[in-house]
Amino acid sequence: MNQVQQDRQAFSWPVRVYWEDTDAGGIVFYANYLKFFERARTEWLRSLGLEQRALRETSGGIFVVSAANLRYHQPARLDDELLVTAWLQEKGRASMTIVQQAWLMAPCTKELLCEASVRIGWVDAGSYKPARIPPTLLETLK
Amino acid sequence: MNQVQQDRQAFSWPVRVYWEDTDAGGIVFYANYLKFFERARTEWLRSLGLEQRALRETSGGIFVVSAANLRYHQPARLDDELLVTAWLQEKGRASMTIVQQAWLMAPCTKELLCEASVRIGWVDAGSYKPARIPPTLLETLK
Amino acid sequence: MNQVQQDRQAFSWPVRVYWEDTDAGGIVFYANYLKFFERARTEWLRSLGLEQRALRETSGGIFVVSAANLRYHQPARLDDELLVTAWLQEKGRASMTIVQQAWLMAPCTKELLCEASVRIGWVDAGSYKPARIPPTLLETLK
Amino acid sequence: MNQVQQDRQAFSWPVRVYWEDTDAGGIVFYANYLKFFERARTEWLRSLGLEQRALRETSGGIFVVSAANLRYHQPARLDDELLVTAWLQEKGRASMTIVQQAWLMAPCTKELLCEASVRIGWVDAGSYKPARIPPTLLETLK
Repeated sequence: MNQVQQDRQAFSWPVRVYWEDTDAGGIVFYANYLKFFERARTEWLRSLGLEQRALRETSGGIFVVSAANLRYHQPARLDDELLVTAWLQEKGRASMTIVQQAWLMAPCTKELLCEASVRIGWVDAGSYKPARIPPTLLETLK
Repeated sequence: MNQVQQDRQAFSWPVRVYWEDTDAGGIVFYANYLKFFERARTEWLRSLGLEQRALRETSGGIFVVSAANLRYHQPARLDDELLVTAWLQEKGRASMTIVQQAWLMAPCTKELLCEASVRIGWVDAGSYKPARIPPTLLETLK
Repeated sequence: MNQVQQDRQAFSWPVRVYWEDTDAGGIVFYANYLKFFERARTEWLRSLGLEQRALRETSGGIFVVSAANLRYHQPARLDDELLVTAWLQEKGRASMTIVQQAWLMAPCTKELLCEASVRIGWVDAGSYKPARIPPTLLETLK
Repeated sequence: MNQVQQDRQAFSWPVRVYWEDTDAGGIVFYANYLKFFERARTEWLRSLGLEQRALRETSGGIFVVSAANLRYHQPARLDDELLVTAWLQEKGRASMTIVQQAWLMAPCTKELLCEASVRIGWVDAGSYKPARIPPTLLETLK
């Protein structure tokens, strides 16, 4: 991945670490990065005018995660401020791949904590059968 | 509450403490006792033949929590074995109150960690409007 | 509780509802209001200059929840915007009581979803034995 | 991966789906499979006589997840019974790779819901610096 390229295009969303996010190791529980990444994806979609509850009510479909590859580099701790990015890497008619990173925002520097590649598919909200992403939605994603 | 009386009648369910349950204080995150209590209530209902997903599909209603009062006495830690109880204290036509406790099961003793009184109401699964608990369900609860 | 009085003095913090917060009932899982309330308390403390990780490192103590009384009025759903308040009701030398509310912020109105009274104690971070809240901390809380 | 081979050697652990595990899509929230997989790994270690809290107190080290690759095949729903497996695929001096699967256990069949490859490293519990897995621990892992 081209870092400079990505920085220029990525959507970013601030996340604060609370007690709920940590575990007895004193750090953010690793499963919770999937929550942070999802918040950033949701806000990225919202920034494009796409609200997922409304999408479901109008189209009958929802996005689901079909694959996720995570790499953990450094731990985050209580009260840390993170910046979480989302960058659309690939887009097909039934799925897309989003590259995401969580950065620790320290006073004079930033440090990469965790990165992920997340594949999202579109399914019928009742049957969970894969379906084509509605064309207007695909266009909004550019 | 009469402890002896309750011990005799309470349903109990074992819960093990995993990393996911703890926080950076090194102990079980206090909100998670609500999860432990819900597991015990769900298994208590299941022991009476009541599966909540099936209940919803056949009756169109679900149980929701309308109030919870929690007292925290001692913390639990990673790898601890708890015993969580559920005891039907009061039963009306639209709601019921369940008294619950979480005990630490140590080799030679047990220690009360947390106790709660949880009020459960019955609502329509679509509108979330309060409704009467179905009579057959009420009878099963005795 | 005097509503007008409280509105004037309460600290408030916005919370957005994400997938992680909901359950199969289609609404926010009730245990998660304890997370929302904790975020608001943490931000209220931060607004007074109190960072909990730093507090622990300098004083050796931490706040723990010793009791929580919750009332659930209306459900929240995916994408909803909430406003969560925290208001210091009572303050002693070893504990304090905070009244909290979660409001749904709709375009033209707001609706009370959940309210709680949360008692917080101060304990030694190693032994979890109750202790007196450090005087400088107490003064900051006014 | 050789399925027959794996079935023969994998440790397995039952997991029940509760309200806390689901989201507004009506299915298990995908991040929660990381919790299910961790429970199975923890119980696999426990079956070998390794308790993680005791390990930390005696060795000063803990296991942390350094990478996770997840594939989601089918959703699970409230009340479903899962069987979660853990199988040690590779073992080095500072890390190991565990292959895990979550199966839906239906009356007459089982269905693969999710599979993951999880890389675990050993770190100092204070500094989170990578370290060698203690030799006695490595031997217990065979």
